[in-house]
Amino acid sequence: MIITPEIIGYVAATLTTASFLPQAILTIKTKDTESLSLSMYSLFTAGVFFWLLYGVYISDKAIIFANSITLVLAASILFFKIYNVLFKNG
Amino acid sequence: MIITPEIIGYVAATLTTASFLPQAILTIKTKDTESLSLSMYSLFTAGVFFWLLYGVYISDKAIIFANSITLVLAASILFFKIYNVLFKNG
Repeated sequence: MIITPEIIGYVAATLTTASFLPQAILTIKTKDTESLSLSMYSLFTAGVFFWLLYGVYISDKAIIFANSITLVLAASILFFKIYNVLFKNG
Repeated sequence: MIITPEIIGYVAATLTTASFLPQAILTIKTKDTESLSLSMYSLFTAGVFFWLLYGVYISDKAIIFANSITLVLAASILFFKIYNVLFKNG
């Protein structure tokens, strides 16, 4: 088996996305965001958006793949966090 | 000002690395890792390592830059977590 850069990119994408999944699932399920940091998730979501944009610019499938999934997850968490801050004090 | 893909890459790198900094600083300062997930940080650190490897393979400076810094931070957190699990029950 030849290990191409593409395979390494997808291994990287799978690992970092998988590491983020448990938090995303927990937050989407419980909608509890009290112990999450608004500034951290704002920076992270914006960063993932720019990584996705970067992937599109340089036409890199692994980067587009990883950051599309992570953006949906991170944006969902951020949405719940902002909603809770605005309407439920946390 | 012309926005090049390189600038977008560095904006992305700065944002995602910055979002990770407060947790890294807190953990390195306090060495308290009780509320951190070993499996999450193992996956994340491995993933960042593969992103770094990917950056080197495709000679992408923004990816190398972002993941070098994040790898040092993530690996430090993982080190404290493993140390605490082995010697301090958490």
